[in-house]
Amino acid sequence: MFNDLFLRACRLEETERRPVWLMRQAGRYMESYQRVRREHSFMEMCRTPELAAEVTLQPVREFGFDAAILFSDILVPVEAMGVEVEFVEGTGPVLGATIDEEADVEGLRVPDPYEDLSFVLDAIKILRKKLEVPLIGFSGAPFTLASYILEGGGSRSYERAKSVMYNEPGIWKGLMSKITDTVIAYLNAQIEAGAQAVQVFDSWAGALSPEDYRAYALPYSKRVFDSLRGDVPAIHFGTGTSGYIELIREAGGDVIGVDWRIDIGEAWQRIGYDRGIQGNLDPLALHARPEVLRRKILSILEGTGDRPGHIFNLGHGILPTTSAEKVRLLVDAVKRFSPL
Amino acid sequence: MFNDLFLRACRLEETERRPVWLMRQAGRYMESYQRVRREHSFMEMCRTPELAAEVTLQPVREFGFDAAILFSDILVPVEAMGVEVEFVEGTGPVLGATIDEEADVEGLRVPDPYEDLSFVLDAIKILRKKLEVPLIGFSGAPFTLASYILEGGGSRSYERAKSVMYNEPGIWKGLMSKITDTVIAYLNAQIEAGAQAVQVFDSWAGALSPEDYRAYALPYSKRVFDSLRGDVPAIHFGTGTSGYIELIREAGGDVIGVDWRIDIGEAWQRIGYDRGIQGNLDPLALHARPEVLRRKILSILEGTGDRPGHIFNLGHGILPTTSAEKVRLLVDAVKRFSPL
Repeated sequence: MFNDLFLRACRLEETERRPVWLMRQAGRYMESYQRVRREHSFMEMCRTPELAAEVTLQPVREFGFDAAILFSDILVPVEAMGVEVEFVEGTGPVLGATIDEEADVEGLRVPDPYEDLSFVLDAIKILRKKLEVPLIGFSGAPFTLASYILEGGGSRSYERAKSVMYNEPGIWKGLMSKITDTVIAYLNAQIEAGAQAVQVFDSWAGALSPEDYRAYALPYSKRVFDSLRGDVPAIHFGTGTSGYIELIREAGGDVIGVDWRIDIGEAWQRIGYDRGIQGNLDPLALHARPEVLRRKILSILEGTGDRPGHIFNLGHGILPTTSAEKVRLLVDAVKRFSPL
Repeated sequence: MFNDLFLRACRLEETERRPVWLMRQAGRYMESYQRVRREHSFMEMCRTPELAAEVTLQPVREFGFDAAILFSDILVPVEAMGVEVEFVEGTGPVLGATIDEEADVEGLRVPDPYEDLSFVLDAIKILRKKLEVPLIGFSGAPFTLASYILEGGGSRSYERAKSVMYNEPGIWKGLMSKITDTVIAYLNAQIEAGAQAVQVFDSWAGALSPEDYRAYALPYSKRVFDSLRGDVPAIHFGTGTSGYIELIREAGGDVIGVDWRIDIGEAWQRIGYDRGIQGNLDPLALHARPEVLRRKILSILEGTGDRPGHIFNLGHGILPTTSAEKVRLLVDAVKRFSPL
């Protein structure tokens, strides 16, 4: 019995109840994930289709989520572009690109996903045979990936990324174009391999002013959404973008994912009801007492009303310190209290 | 000749042009500040009235800002509450409080600013004799200070602060009340010593959902604004709060300070024109080429229209890597292009 609740909600069709899945649901908070992780490095897990498929399946089996999201990392295609990526325990990713002039951008390649990222496509194929819920493929958005490359990792102030953006239009446009081409080819290959929806993560878009988002990021994200093939729904997720969710919508996506820094009912109204909405529980709410957590879940269900098109999720990825018990409570509460 | 542009803008009175000052304008980007800093530790500078006054004056003298903000740190009153605070080069502040039960909160004191923080008041008195622009006093908001205490420093996910907030109402309320009492006494003493305006920094409020801000932070911030004595304007500044600036306004403040993640014209409209607005240039815009920087300044001047009550500022503190040349360009552009 295939559970298509999630896909129907993406298409704004009526559903018996809200679909629920969590960003980074295949992760360190799970004992079963930890067992795999102890034997393999993070990148090894990303690169081995059987392992990636296995950890993708775990949370669906254990918690009954209504969708699976492919286990991978947004830097996987960046590495395939020719950038060295290392995951340093406790620090996060460290990237080895030096982009000082336009020639450095020319040195990056647009990977052929069928050649260079076939392990991702293979994981998707394995998963489609095993899953009874929709499989979501994903990619980082151009701005977020460009920032990673230019900053060499995570950033507080995006000093290098913004300096290039403002002062080196040739480098910025070249890099963003190349990343955009990469993302489009990558997502379309995922769709062809069997991804039934895709999510574009612009996790760092919130570093930008609305004006800068419109000038330096939106055109590239828009090209991604406009170039997606097939009839699969696309989710557009950003954090820190409460000030300009209208622009996130303008860039594209059938469903807009919002973080918890905005009332979800208000967000949906601003985005428009011709789009679905995904979110937006604070991941830290899973550290709250059951009665507080339950109240917060109800508040999101009530805030989105009885209109079809809401997909329950967190406002950002689940934290490693989350207890599985609370995740169970969440899934149970959404399923129990959300019949439309 | 006393320049009262800033105070008149705070009171929504007509001004010949927009007043301009920058958050953290007394800081490491200045050569003159660095010279003082090389001889003294950061906390020594905060605690020595003559040094604090000197670095407060420097940017006003060098760049012609329309207001001075007292050189200090939001953790100064926290230290006076009995919490060990250490500034670790490159890491930021490390706080030594252990708040595990209500008794730990009882162990904290509400400092008497006239006894415990007299060095701040003395700096204010020195400055009032020397300044020909208004002097702004300041404090952190209760939520931001409570988070610092509970997290022991900066934080990414506010795991500890939110866990206490959700799960230990006794500790949370006790701690927030004590901090609120501290902030009120501290700000009122600054006003009595001569501060002509005060700014309340809720730099971390953006970690909260609107619902949580309303439940766990707003009542305490509101009590601060409601308890300010004297007829001095209060500025209420938050970052990451674009999703609920209406609540920031509801908590209080004659002027609302916004970060760059929202269009300032839209922000003012949402806040209401019976309040002033301060902001909101991205600090990284000061790393942009002159023509890009100038365009961004003009866009803020145009976005706020010809209504009195706009104070030009950044959307957050100026970065240490900023060039003094660009600061000069900014001040010059605001003064030249903003006549109403």
